[in-house]
Amino acid sequence: MHSPDIPKAGEMPLFAAALLESLRAKAPRVHCVTNSVAQNFTANALLAVGCVPSMTLSADEIGDFVSRSDALLVNLGTFDRERREATEIAVETASEGKRPWVLDPVFVDRAPGRADFARELAARGPSVVRLNASEFSTLFGVQASRDTVIAAARANTIVLALSGETDLVTDGTRAAAIGNGHPLMAKVTAMGCAASALVTACLAVETDGWRAAAGALTIFGVAGELAAAKSAGPGSFAVAILDALHALDGATVVQRARVT
Amino acid sequence: MHSPDIPKAGEMPLFAAALLESLRAKAPRVHCVTNSVAQNFTANALLAVGCVPSMTLSADEIGDFVSRSDALLVNLGTFDRERREATEIAVETASEGKRPWVLDPVFVDRAPGRADFARELAARGPSVVRLNASEFSTLFGVQASRDTVIAAARANTIVLALSGETDLVTDGTRAAAIGNGHPLMAKVTAMGCAASALVTACLAVETDGWRAAAGALTIFGVAGELAAAKSAGPGSFAVAILDALHALDGATVVQRARVT
Amino acid sequence: MHSPDIPKAGEMPLFAAALLESLRAKAPRVHCVTNSVAQNFTANALLAVGCVPSMTLSADEIGDFVSRSDALLVNLGTFDRERREATEIAVETASEGKRPWVLDPVFVDRAPGRADFARELAARGPSVVRLNASEFSTLFGVQASRDTVIAAARANTIVLALSGETDLVTDGTRAAAIGNGHPLMAKVTAMGCAASALVTACLAVETDGWRAAAGALTIFGVAGELAAAKSAGPGSFAVAILDALHALDGATVVQRARVT
Repeated sequence: MHSPDIPKAGEMPLFAAALLESLRAKAPRVHCVTNSVAQNFTANALLAVGCVPSMTLSADEIGDFVSRSDALLVNLGTFDRERREATEIAVETASEGKRPWVLDPVFVDRAPGRADFARELAARGPSVVRLNASEFSTLFGVQASRDTVIAAARANTIVLALSGETDLVTDGTRAAAIGNGHPLMAKVTAMGCAASALVTACLAVETDGWRAAAGALTIFGVAGELAAAKSAGPGSFAVAILDALHALDGATVVQRARVT
Repeated sequence: MHSPDIPKAGEMPLFAAALLESLRAKAPRVHCVTNSVAQNFTANALLAVGCVPSMTLSADEIGDFVSRSDALLVNLGTFDRERREATEIAVETASEGKRPWVLDPVFVDRAPGRADFARELAARGPSVVRLNASEFSTLFGVQASRDTVIAAARANTIVLALSGETDLVTDGTRAAAIGNGHPLMAKVTAMGCAASALVTACLAVETDGWRAAAGALTIFGVAGELAAAKSAGPGSFAVAILDALHALDGATVVQRARVT
Repeated sequence: MHSPDIPKAGEMPLFAAALLESLRAKAPRVHCVTNSVAQNFTANALLAVGCVPSMTLSADEIGDFVSRSDALLVNLGTFDRERREATEIAVETASEGKRPWVLDPVFVDRAPGRADFARELAARGPSVVRLNASEFSTLFGVQASRDTVIAAARANTIVLALSGETDLVTDGTRAAAIGNGHPLMAKVTAMGCAASALVTACLAVETDGWRAAAGALTIFGVAGELAAAKSAGPGSFAVAILDALHALDGATVVQRARVT
């Protein structure tokens, strides 16, 4: 249980800034099980903040990669027979090695089999589940609202990071609402996958899943705002957010963070 | 058969403009069976015009995705055992649900097995086949010219969209020659795949395959010209065409379209 | 054995310039077995210098593609069952047709099975192996230094291209140290894969593997420097290097090359 003197959402800007510095200093290895649409952008986003990404999906070697990584992302955008087998090995390896892992149940609202697999995975103890309102509703059987998300996090002793106009990150006890970001983020594919990858990276340097997730989404939202100011549309935005993540410093995060 | 008073190529600029507005208003779901080289750029092109792309290739769930989509793209750049199985399920699902689908027989000139598969698929009633001269020649056994392409479309009761310096779109009765576009489009991978995806998207909002294909290629060509004016080479061109697709409005399409 | 009057490293700038002109004139077909993270960027890099890339990984058709190509890249970033089978067919086809091929043993330091497969492939006579210090150390069992790399090339009668702050290209007799490049190249995924693809392309127009590899890395490094001057971070750098490769001419290569 969380002691009453742990940091609250109001202190998140400083934590987010510290997380960013920690990523750059420690350069964690992040293994990503993600779909081929998102792999390139996700790898570049992780490189931009100083991490070392790897992406193999082969069942024959994913265990070796995960056991040499600091954290694991499981994005269900990839879902065929071999990928499913690889995912299971990856989660098993992460669990055995007590490595943190993040579940991003992309598009579970589109295919029942995918939703079933996501439920199985959610029950295996991911540090954080990052998802949108529609995916939440499919997995938890209730419309997403601040109250239902907090209740679902508490009932499942899990950290939930719900993306939306305002992101909500909660472990059932604490809740942070993150107002950073920009509408262009919804017009570029893999932006959510990259956000989940950044949550994963932060878990490699911060054991408190709530702080790691809220800090990561704050960093990502601030980078999105800086990128939008230099963009002429979704194409240049996708380029500019990588530049922004690379150039971002803690002081800018503190100055621009809008977390309540 | 087409009645004599249906719109002619000369009216295409206005149709193309209306199609673009319709895409933005209706935000159709477009499922893409496409290769991993093209997936990211294709998804971003669809998002830029207001569509909702999905890309899974898993045989286990592609039926669910296609049955929840408004149109299907089948790009043969992806061609291994599981992909082939997934493609067959996708086409079957689209046909049963009377959803339009587009075939892009990429590189059939390079491998006989791929050409055979493309011929089988072409016989299953795609709304449009988009291809280049070399692919046409492989599939139809004759050099591509205005006359042979129109004849092939008529003989196979199919809409053919032949890309080239001037694009030719024909259903065997009507023919539109689209002069828009830019040479840099041939220097960026997946540009043709994205054009096929835009044809697919337009089929989701326009049942006349000839109009949908000609309109889509007009929109794409105009965006290419606008992008080229802001580019320093193929790298910045690929970025700028996404910006251009996102910013494009009907008036600009009408003003710049060169369709005869 | 190399005769004493063959060109030395000091003549490399002129060779590199000639190689670039040759790529543009001959437009070789380059088939790439590479991972899905790298496919798009690799294809665009090859297109930017005037080549025709293809990327299929299907065991059913890769033989047809390789037999219609001028050179083959094998990048181990792709390593699952079907890809492994496809790789073996690709290498077999290239060897039978006496087509040059390049091995890029990505991340062999992360998984023993991948390292074993790389060793098997290295024994099958690639024209060039391009790798970094950590991959060299895994494959050859010794720390990478100028002397150990030259010795390994001589012992295995192979051309080794070791990337690093200064690239080292050696066939065991000749050695070129290439000082071109920029630190941002290490902050963008697939940059090394694209460099290997450019080595492959140069082998399609130059039978001397040492010259082809050293020339390719000189061209790529010069493009990287030009791109960095126009970039605001890794996102815009990845775009600008494609523009730079497309715009690069022989005179600029000669002027900027730093090869000793």
